[in-house]
Amino acid sequence: MAEKIEVGIIGATGYTGGELLRLLSRHPGVEVTFVTSEQSAGKKIDELFPSLTGIINLTLKKIATIEKSSKPDLFFVALPHGTAMTLVPSLLEKGVKIIDLGADYRLNKPALYQEWYHLDHLNPGLLTQAVYGLTEVYRKKIKSASLVANPGCYPTSILLPLYPLLKEGLVDPDFPLIIDAKSGVSGAGRSPDIRTHFSEADEGIEPYKTGRKHRHIPEIEQEIEHFSGQYRPITFTPQLLPISRGILSVIYLKLKTKKIFLEDLYKKYYDQEPFVQILKPGLSPNPKNVRGSNYCHIGFSKDPKTGVISLYSAIDNLTKGASGQAIQNMNLMFGLEETSGLASPGIFP
Amino acid sequence: MAEKIEVGIIGATGYTGGELLRLLSRHPGVEVTFVTSEQSAGKKIDELFPSLTGIINLTLKKIATIEKSSKPDLFFVALPHGTAMTLVPSLLEKGVKIIDLGADYRLNKPALYQEWYHLDHLNPGLLTQAVYGLTEVYRKKIKSASLVANPGCYPTSILLPLYPLLKEGLVDPDFPLIIDAKSGVSGAGRSPDIRTHFSEADEGIEPYKTGRKHRHIPEIEQEIEHFSGQYRPITFTPQLLPISRGILSVIYLKLKTKKIFLEDLYKKYYDQEPFVQILKPGLSPNPKNVRGSNYCHIGFSKDPKTGVISLYSAIDNLTKGASGQAIQNMNLMFGLEETSGLASPGIFP
Amino acid sequence: MAEKIEVGIIGATGYTGGELLRLLSRHPGVEVTFVTSEQSAGKKIDELFPSLTGIINLTLKKIATIEKSSKPDLFFVALPHGTAMTLVPSLLEKGVKIIDLGADYRLNKPALYQEWYHLDHLNPGLLTQAVYGLTEVYRKKIKSASLVANPGCYPTSILLPLYPLLKEGLVDPDFPLIIDAKSGVSGAGRSPDIRTHFSEADEGIEPYKTGRKHRHIPEIEQEIEHFSGQYRPITFTPQLLPISRGILSVIYLKLKTKKIFLEDLYKKYYDQEPFVQILKPGLSPNPKNVRGSNYCHIGFSKDPKTGVISLYSAIDNLTKGASGQAIQNMNLMFGLEETSGLASPGIFP
Amino acid sequence: MAEKIEVGIIGATGYTGGELLRLLSRHPGVEVTFVTSEQSAGKKIDELFPSLTGIINLTLKKIATIEKSSKPDLFFVALPHGTAMTLVPSLLEKGVKIIDLGADYRLNKPALYQEWYHLDHLNPGLLTQAVYGLTEVYRKKIKSASLVANPGCYPTSILLPLYPLLKEGLVDPDFPLIIDAKSGVSGAGRSPDIRTHFSEADEGIEPYKTGRKHRHIPEIEQEIEHFSGQYRPITFTPQLLPISRGILSVIYLKLKTKKIFLEDLYKKYYDQEPFVQILKPGLSPNPKNVRGSNYCHIGFSKDPKTGVISLYSAIDNLTKGASGQAIQNMNLMFGLEETSGLASPGIFP
Repeated sequence: MAEKIEVGIIGATGYTGGELLRLLSRHPGVEVTFVTSEQSAGKKIDELFPSLTGIINLTLKKIATIEKSSKPDLFFVALPHGTAMTLVPSLLEKGVKIIDLGADYRLNKPALYQEWYHLDHLNPGLLTQAVYGLTEVYRKKIKSASLVANPGCYPTSILLPLYPLLKEGLVDPDFPLIIDAKSGVSGAGRSPDIRTHFSEADEGIEPYKTGRKHRHIPEIEQEIEHFSGQYRPITFTPQLLPISRGILSVIYLKLKTKKIFLEDLYKKYYDQEPFVQILKPGLSPNPKNVRGSNYCHIGFSKDPKTGVISLYSAIDNLTKGASGQAIQNMNLMFGLEETSGLASPGIFP
Repeated sequence: MAEKIEVGIIGATGYTGGELLRLLSRHPGVEVTFVTSEQSAGKKIDELFPSLTGIINLTLKKIATIEKSSKPDLFFVALPHGTAMTLVPSLLEKGVKIIDLGADYRLNKPALYQEWYHLDHLNPGLLTQAVYGLTEVYRKKIKSASLVANPGCYPTSILLPLYPLLKEGLVDPDFPLIIDAKSGVSGAGRSPDIRTHFSEADEGIEPYKTGRKHRHIPEIEQEIEHFSGQYRPITFTPQLLPISRGILSVIYLKLKTKKIFLEDLYKKYYDQEPFVQILKPGLSPNPKNVRGSNYCHIGFSKDPKTGVISLYSAIDNLTKGASGQAIQNMNLMFGLEETSGLASPGIFP
Repeated sequence: MAEKIEVGIIGATGYTGGELLRLLSRHPGVEVTFVTSEQSAGKKIDELFPSLTGIINLTLKKIATIEKSSKPDLFFVALPHGTAMTLVPSLLEKGVKIIDLGADYRLNKPALYQEWYHLDHLNPGLLTQAVYGLTEVYRKKIKSASLVANPGCYPTSILLPLYPLLKEGLVDPDFPLIIDAKSGVSGAGRSPDIRTHFSEADEGIEPYKTGRKHRHIPEIEQEIEHFSGQYRPITFTPQLLPISRGILSVIYLKLKTKKIFLEDLYKKYYDQEPFVQILKPGLSPNPKNVRGSNYCHIGFSKDPKTGVISLYSAIDNLTKGASGQAIQNMNLMFGLEETSGLASPGIFP
Repeated sequence: MAEKIEVGIIGATGYTGGELLRLLSRHPGVEVTFVTSEQSAGKKIDELFPSLTGIINLTLKKIATIEKSSKPDLFFVALPHGTAMTLVPSLLEKGVKIIDLGADYRLNKPALYQEWYHLDHLNPGLLTQAVYGLTEVYRKKIKSASLVANPGCYPTSILLPLYPLLKEGLVDPDFPLIIDAKSGVSGAGRSPDIRTHFSEADEGIEPYKTGRKHRHIPEIEQEIEHFSGQYRPITFTPQLLPISRGILSVIYLKLKTKKIFLEDLYKKYYDQEPFVQILKPGLSPNPKNVRGSNYCHIGFSKDPKTGVISLYSAIDNLTKGASGQAIQNMNLMFGLEETSGLASPGIFP
């Protein structure tokens, strides 16, 4: 058996950290050797994730102790934006590969980062070096990357259904791109606040950061421009759903031509993709069907009277929308089977 | 004290029937004297609604026994479409007023009814006589109506925010009207099926009847034409939410002019309305805040880059979206205080 | 019309404060004139409770400003334990009646307070003066009380079904009293923490404060002693349910005799009680059926083989378990109709 | 690589069938070759389980077609009780091993089966031949069994924590065994009915089949007798929880002696068990932490005043409570690694 690659997780106590641990605990080619938390250093992993009791026996350490530990092959960085960029350059210098699950390396242009995050980027040179980790689109670049900027959860759910249409130049540029997206509460992270307090979020649904305020917008627009060669702004409405995991995105657009047969197009792009499933006409994606899995379900419909096309996509925000895709990228970066550790179906019901 | 009006509920065992009973149990000017159910005749109301134990002491009867009972002043009809129209004409002939909570009298044109419900309308003459019971818009006509077609839940949530803009001719006709709406499961009624089985609906969200298939579409388009004088098709995406009650509708459109100050416009139309509340800019409607109440919360935002306007509205589908609005209409029809029996705030949390 | 009584709410921004405001907004004999919050002073009520938009137009003030305001007839005190007792004596001195929704005046013995709350009671003399506000049991004393200690939510749900059996001396003293109780998350208050974070509480159920640690235990045991004349310890297992509102308590015990017909006994005690409903044999209480209402549903069953009796009770923890019962007590204290403002049925579904 | 064993699933469209398919799709040593459904014959598996789209490509067939198909090594039978026993003998005769996930072979005594299921058992001789598939207890017998009666979900959650105490003769026989158990809705199966309709089950909790009516009682009592050598009746209160998956059982009992150190005892019995995890004192089992996994979490506490011991256990009713344990048994029956296909941690959050 081949030697296992060794990975560390920096910021292991949030939901994306926990999801990395859950998935990697079953990965045949990887061993997690190092987990950090500034606040919970000294605690065992199963104190923070009782679901890992008897499965993972690691003690959390402070980042400052990384130096002394044996060097892993890769670090997953699950830190808040602004913090990751203080750490990543020094890690890269040691020859360790990095997959950053946060926002610090997703935008190519420092000015855009400054505009949306109100921070000067500390290592703008890395922005062009970093590869955007939307696996199905950038697979080739990811294989040789040393720094992967793992996509946001909303962007993953939105860009996968849009990619074939934009790449083929089929989207009517005069019609608006309207994206109505709904996310489970785990997308807001593990830090308690009033909005994600059970009694406040349960049995409701609420739009938030409306009016072009959500920080995933520049990331989505950047990739739309990459796919189509043309910048166009989107209208994006994120909404908080009373479920733990899952995103459903509905995208409204028009096509330049009526002649396109969408099913064929999607098959052309995604038939060989292990994790992208195009649903049969009439079936609708539902995040419940991909819960805990790395799958993305895509569907579409056409309004016969208005001609508006609706694209639907469902992912698990913590898996394909974060840690699952990160592991998919890791597999590529180390020449492992791309689906390794990731092929479990969604947990239904 | 004035004499109470007497009402009967035909089809009292579904959710809209139960909601009528809940609300009317506290209405100072109304007494429910007659409740029917073909399947549960002979049972007590609290066998079907344990929440009414000790509160309502009525026994369900078959419709066929109506003749023999004392004639009420009004019947609420909560029957499936197609069934109501077999019964309503004979009830009207007796001089009883009718509020139909189903779809049989909502569409003005028999041909439209036939197209969407695949049935010939049995009393097409009543279609023009029936008043569409969107209270805030048709208050005057409702007061003198003998047959009110109570609006659907989705249409209520969509038409209230659209009305001021359409009435003033402000909506850009070249831009699509896209409506992304999400409903709690009680909107699908009380008959169990696989889609509304707890384990299937819990922790998911799923678009359904996509591609111009939902029967609320012609009702919405008819009223849009009434408001604006111009027919225009909509794109409508209904989605099933894992909550018991509540609808959130998001409407995307553009305005003809940038000069309109939406807050002023909405105030002009709704400031005196007891049940329509315009939220302060930045706040988003959430059906959780109107749960169990007759209130409609409306908000809006503008995308500063694309110019797209988003309207947001939240109602309780069983209250303002059905039984609450029906009682509001009843109050008008009998000269009662419009808010009588309806003024309770939403139950939060 | 009689003049309205004026009430103030001290600590109005938590869930019990919000529930008081919701219920009192519809109370015909009461006007809320004063609401306090140390943290949110200056804000409007609807900023904290959007469900009250257009319904309550009050601005939160600091407690320190009470002096300058017009004196209300009653204060509801919804402060954390330990804080209420710093304030209540001075309020009482002004001749204002008090209903304390917290724990400071529930225990008769200062030593017990010290043991469970790890604080010396600041006004132990008031402990014997305060009336325990379990309305159905202490109605007479409440009518003339100037300080009512409103019961905890768990105790209310547990003491109402136990009272008739204990009062009649029917409970087998040699058999343990085991109470397995489950509460919705709003019972834990409005302050966000990790345990009540949506993603942590959703889709789970977890016992907490097991092994005789929950502070409602001495309150329950004190009343059991009052009812039966005999102290006996209970075994109490509180559990957190993934619902916003509601408590289901299951109580296991044995009776001294097999000759008792429970239905008759409960009828004797509760048939005239407006808010206590004894369910027919075979029906089980469910907090869903009393949601948002002041009702308590009680049921029972007997295991034919072991002879164990199970009592079941369901309340809404915020209504009968807190603010509803407080208003019921207020009605008694001011000679108002006991059910005034409280008679709405539970919201189902 | 060793040849894969071939299995068929009879009754593959319910939740236990779906869970078998989900788990077996990742099992390295098994291939599902045959799936049946009388109602959905001819459909593809992913039409019934969209979560298996692109993962399992099997078509449902009628049971009658089994003859013609290649003979598998094992059949999982997931049929309603009463139906399984019409089929199992003929399957066994062909030399196929059987794991029955239903109730037909769990009770050793035909009379008990008749009493609880109101049916004469058709093959009473098989009742003694069948091995009760509680893996941790009957591992040795299971290895050589040809017919395994897979335990019910409640019994699994209750017997695992009870076993060590009963086996060691530590439980006080004079104290009642009270079991307060709560199950997610998937435990009620996939057939829609009013009790499991989303709007009825959501935001509530309800005891059902109270007063010694639940059919898991004889199964639990039979095993208690097996473990301890002594029959004793239990008091069992099943309750329906508003979650899709998961059971929490709380068991109240007393011990004969105060000298026992429970943590040591549980370690002795379960320390080497891969799927039974004893939580540290103070931590409580929560089905959320074992969701989708084959793990059973066990905790306990002692009331210092009453001496009552509470045992807590959490499982996923569809995994360790049904299909996961069935696969664990299959692994044993075919000499595969016992954890094969089962070692994934619970999905949290």
